[in-house]
Amino acid sequence: MDEFDPTTHPHRRLNPLTNEYILVSPHRAKRPWLGQTETLQATDLPAYDPACYLCPGNTRSGGQANEAYEHTYLFENDFAAVLPPPAPIAPIAPHPLLATEPVHGGCDVLVFHPRHNLTLSRLARPDIERIIEEWIAIYTKRSLQEGIKYVQIFENKGAMMGCSNPHPHGQVWSLSAVPTLPATELASLEKYAQTTQTTSEAPRGSQGRPCMLCEYAHVEIGFAEDQGRVVVKNEHWVAVVPWWATWPFEVLLLPYKRHISAISDLGAEEKEAFADALSQITIRYDNLFSCLFAYSMGIHQRPTLSGDDVAHLHLHFAPPLLRSASVRKFLVGYELMAEAQRDLTAEQAAARLRALSGKHFLEE
Amino acid sequence: MDEFDPTTHPHRRLNPLTNEYILVSPHRAKRPWLGQTETLQATDLPAYDPACYLCPGNTRSGGQANEAYEHTYLFENDFAAVLPPPAPIAPIAPHPLLATEPVHGGCDVLVFHPRHNLTLSRLARPDIERIIEEWIAIYTKRSLQEGIKYVQIFENKGAMMGCSNPHPHGQVWSLSAVPTLPATELASLEKYAQTTQTTSEAPRGSQGRPCMLCEYAHVEIGFAEDQGRVVVKNEHWVAVVPWWATWPFEVLLLPYKRHISAISDLGAEEKEAFADALSQITIRYDNLFSCLFAYSMGIHQRPTLSGDDVAHLHLHFAPPLLRSASVRKFLVGYELMAEAQRDLTAEQAAARLRALSGKHFLEE
Ligand SMILES: O=P(O)(O)O[C@H]1O[C@H](CO)[C@@H](O)[C@H](O)[C@H]1O
Ligand SMILES: O=P(O)(O)O[C@H]1O[C@H](CO)[C@@H](O)[C@H](O)[C@H]1O
Repeated sequence: MDEFDPTTHPHRRLNPLTNEYILVSPHRAKRPWLGQTETLQATDLPAYDPACYLCPGNTRSGGQANEAYEHTYLFENDFAAVLPPPAPIAPIAPHPLLATEPVHGGCDVLVFHPRHNLTLSRLARPDIERIIEEWIAIYTKRSLQEGIKYVQIFENKGAMMGCSNPHPHGQVWSLSAVPTLPATELASLEKYAQTTQTTSEAPRGSQGRPCMLCEYAHVEIGFAEDQGRVVVKNEHWVAVVPWWATWPFEVLLLPYKRHISAISDLGAEEKEAFADALSQITIRYDNLFSCLFAYSMGIHQRPTLSGDDVAHLHLHFAPPLLRSASVRKFLVGYELMAEAQRDLTAEQAAARLRALSGKHFLEE
Repeated sequence: MDEFDPTTHPHRRLNPLTNEYILVSPHRAKRPWLGQTETLQATDLPAYDPACYLCPGNTRSGGQANEAYEHTYLFENDFAAVLPPPAPIAPIAPHPLLATEPVHGGCDVLVFHPRHNLTLSRLARPDIERIIEEWIAIYTKRSLQEGIKYVQIFENKGAMMGCSNPHPHGQVWSLSAVPTLPATELASLEKYAQTTQTTSEAPRGSQGRPCMLCEYAHVEIGFAEDQGRVVVKNEHWVAVVPWWATWPFEVLLLPYKRHISAISDLGAEEKEAFADALSQITIRYDNLFSCLFAYSMGIHQRPTLSGDDVAHLHLHFAPPLLRSASVRKFLVGYELMAEAQRDLTAEQAAARLRALSGKHFLEE
């Protein structure tokens, strides 16, 4: 029998955050692709677009005019998925299998920069630091509102990821409930903190309890430079293609020097390093296929300012492209009905991202 | 305060199969869509395409020639995601957070019909019955192979759902492990069977234990004809937009007259009615936006022939289209990072599907 080779032999890997398996079938990358190809995102957008409802001074579909903002710009989503309280209470379910839960909250849009054509990957570090400050401000503000139990910051980038406006922006949905996935992750972190015996030198969580993500970052950093899954690393942050990555070039970004529960706990240097890491990841993403790389990004952290600090701050990047700027991975039939499946190993993806230039291809 | 109206007020619903919540925000359907639009699937394909690797007599990319088949046609996937045993065993994980599990198995492709242009929605009932017989045959065959613990039958339909060939076909992936989602569903069914006290008249599982899905079908059928979530119902099968639907026009199809664990347990009449139900659902799907409606479909059942019969046979249809033949729902940022979110209620979706003609728009 052959010796096990992760780049040839199918195997399953466990995601300890969700307790779900991923089927890794790297030899599948060899098959020809005859399916759908994606339209390229334009790289020659104007700095200002009079028809864009996010550009400074322009009018949004709700009729409101944007300020002539000069840096970031925050406003409430005109089509919010959750609404402010009081929310009418749903009647009692006619059957236990028809369970409903009331929900209230608010949805914000955060425009990253006045320039219509400057994605995160093309912004200067100080501009990214301003975005981080806005994230902290809105996380704090929404956390303090009555009944808010969770603040989800995310970005959908690229038409392929359902983004309806190329003007760089993210969203913040704040809810009176902890959503499914963060709740699952928090439960896994709590279980790890309670049940793990470790002598590792990784940072610990509060009361000296083990933190799964501090430990995971520590392990990843321990591998030799040209091995393992580290994509970029600076003084405070490390970005890896996680062992259990689902999306082809998925990235997990997290601080590794100490246990940090939320963006509001970051010190000045840690914020600077955060901006640097965001810049480095998004530049490499764009450089991979010389395109404006689509992804969904989300920040997971302590649900609110005053929540339980078992959480360790981290960001997930979920990008769909697989083979080229126009050929994506489809997470469909088997993936939707059974379990995630990927066509290259996390190590292969990390090696490719790591090898790329830290200078954006459009600035060359 | 307003009275609760599910078509206006955001709320969360629980999926008892996965124990995950869905955020329902029906008022979001009102927002304008400025994002990506999808290419329409051609409706004028030829009955035979000399360039198609699935048409009878043609050669596949691996070099093998297809038989001159007259009904269904089954062959092993030339780019299988899992390979036959013996699978080389992965070395012991260097750390518990880097856990690997070996996996082996096989992947089959099932071509539905020799005609390149006849989707399930356009096949005659007897042709669909032949597909059902093939599903039973391959489920049986793969079940009996050494070490196989799960047989996942599914179909990706439409380029939008990662299908690379419009010639109607499905797939069967058989594995030496029960994948994540079926394992979760089976655990929920087992828990329901063990812990539920019910006096309902719904069919029961083996040893008279309650079955969550028998009970759920029973509840759905109990609603008045023009209410509720039933889309189509015949002598043995009912199709509903489930209470907890994630995809806009998601459908759950299941037998409701008795507890049936797997397709291999279906009697002759039940199979006929199964073919009828598949036809009725897929015709309505196509009629919704007068297009060849894309979806991923998967059959969930007893993992293998001899497995535990806590499972109740059911099919999930996961179709992405939301507003028209070219505007889909994107399950992206919030959905990937927090929890599923939908823009119309299950009841609204069911009412629309129910109202459609049972005759295919291309046959009018
Ligand atoms: O096997 P196919 O049809 O080539 O590929 C399709 O289905 C697979 C199983 O759902 C997915 O992993 C692929 O991303 C998709 O393109
Ligand atoms: O809010 P937007 O940008 O209009 O919409 C986008 O992000 C939302 C949150 O992930 C999704 O529900 C939508 O499907 C997507 O198109």
